[in-house]
Amino acid sequence: MTNQNNEYSAFFNGLYMPIEAVAISPFDRGFLLGDSIYEAIPAYHNHMLASEQHLQRLINGLNGVGIKSPFNTEQWTDICNRILLPNQDEQLIYMQVTRGNEQQRKHRFPVTAEPTVLVFSIPFSSLIDAQYKGCAAHLQNDLRWQCCHVKSTSLMGNVLAYRQLHLDGVANDEALLVRDGLVVEAPSSNLFIVKNSIIYTPPVDNILPGVTRALVIDIAIQQGYEVKEIAPTIKQLKSADEVWVTNSLEELKPIISVDNQPIATGQPGDVWRQLFNEFQTLKIYSE
Amino acid sequence: MTNQNNEYSAFFNGLYMPIEAVAISPFDRGFLLGDSIYEAIPAYHNHMLASEQHLQRLINGLNGVGIKSPFNTEQWTDICNRILLPNQDEQLIYMQVTRGNEQQRKHRFPVTAEPTVLVFSIPFSSLIDAQYKGCAAHLQNDLRWQCCHVKSTSLMGNVLAYRQLHLDGVANDEALLVRDGLVVEAPSSNLFIVKNSIIYTPPVDNILPGVTRALVIDIAIQQGYEVKEIAPTIKQLKSADEVWVTNSLEELKPIISVDNQPIATGQPGDVWRQLFNEFQTLKIYSE
Repeated sequence: MTNQNNEYSAFFNGLYMPIEAVAISPFDRGFLLGDSIYEAIPAYHNHMLASEQHLQRLINGLNGVGIKSPFNTEQWTDICNRILLPNQDEQLIYMQVTRGNEQQRKHRFPVTAEPTVLVFSIPFSSLIDAQYKGCAAHLQNDLRWQCCHVKSTSLMGNVLAYRQLHLDGVANDEALLVRDGLVVEAPSSNLFIVKNSIIYTPPVDNILPGVTRALVIDIAIQQGYEVKEIAPTIKQLKSADEVWVTNSLEELKPIISVDNQPIATGQPGDVWRQLFNEFQTLKIYSE
Repeated sequence: MTNQNNEYSAFFNGLYMPIEAVAISPFDRGFLLGDSIYEAIPAYHNHMLASEQHLQRLINGLNGVGIKSPFNTEQWTDICNRILLPNQDEQLIYMQVTRGNEQQRKHRFPVTAEPTVLVFSIPFSSLIDAQYKGCAAHLQNDLRWQCCHVKSTSLMGNVLAYRQLHLDGVANDEALLVRDGLVVEAPSSNLFIVKNSIIYTPPVDNILPGVTRALVIDIAIQQGYEVKEIAPTIKQLKSADEVWVTNSLEELKPIISVDNQPIATGQPGDVWRQLFNEFQTLKIYSE
């Protein structure tokens, strides 16, 4: 069942309602403590892309922090389908599950509250097509916590990375985060580089296991590329033939310079274009 | 002006209201991104303790993450006084300022939203008195981010420290967090140890500059102790003569064992008792 008449655009604690009707309690641990897990699923022509992978990651994340998922994958899928906006070429389903509202403010366990569940859909437009000219990137020290594989809403470290870009006058550029000398991730996307036709991407031991990242790896292997899960050093990044970042909203976004030094010729590369074009076919199949 | 008749217990975005009437938008960056700063001020017999230090830390924290404080210290003080609950021996004023509600979900800057301001007061009771028998503590790897001096609500790392205690069957014990071989902090309190009558406490370069910590240092110096801002190693912690942790709610809480190994005789020590008793006089002066 899908949302044919746009009477609601959100699901909140068991009820379908307009997003404007959603009111979060000031005692919700998601608000007070960043104690929640989120997920974002793109949908094209009212069909979600890779929803099983996204929903499984949501459930894994909730398990990882000890919040009981109120629904199984099938139930989550049904909820998502019901709040899809009609007649949108592209929309994003945003999901957040918090550890709940205790009517008090404390860090400590046990927490007996029921999880708070919020799901809503918002339209978006991809900014990137095959003619995209590329994005500049800037290295930053990774300030974030040790469990970035958990898609938690405790995102102040990520927010401050974007703030730094804004302070530096390059708010629309990308940050690339460096941890222990290795370039591991952007604040909300995974990193890929190409060198001598081999594709490298950091392993996801303590960075986000991106769904788009996994789809791109699959496509690359199908296209005959060797893919190695190795994080590049700064020097390897800067001397790469191609660099791009991936996430569900921006898909594959080519990076054409790092700290104002061009990557190769300073243009999006052929491997990126090939994989970007292949990626578009996933969206056709999801129609 | 104080809240004589308990008609309101919260201040939310410019209005005084019952806490039950506060509704946080699902688009608030505090909820979606943990993008906010908080503060907690204890009040005894309707007088706040060290409110200037707390409010200055709030303003410093907001400056640090680029959220404009909507009020100066004097205005914040007035708001806090107005929401004090009448006839409470002990209460806690909780304050949270988020980067605001953008009516969308994005990490990126610029953010043009006005900050969301929530202040409320809740009663509490100190659990610790001079006869307190002490608390057991357990070492944990510090998972948190690199900017723990910022009192942000992105607290999932802290929450998971308490969850680990719960999983280990010791939910009411304390966690002590180890970073690069040094014991730096508990998840919501500062650490002190005593060895040979010298008091040691970790420097606050990337841990929280606790207001209670500063008050305790002042008292210790007044009482003639030498205080060194040095973080102990695990070995130094375990061989200390005394260990305690400090925060605004628990004041000075003695730690009598670490990983099931007693600290000295396994009893709260004389230095703790002396400083704890001196600390109580601050609460009398705040009447």
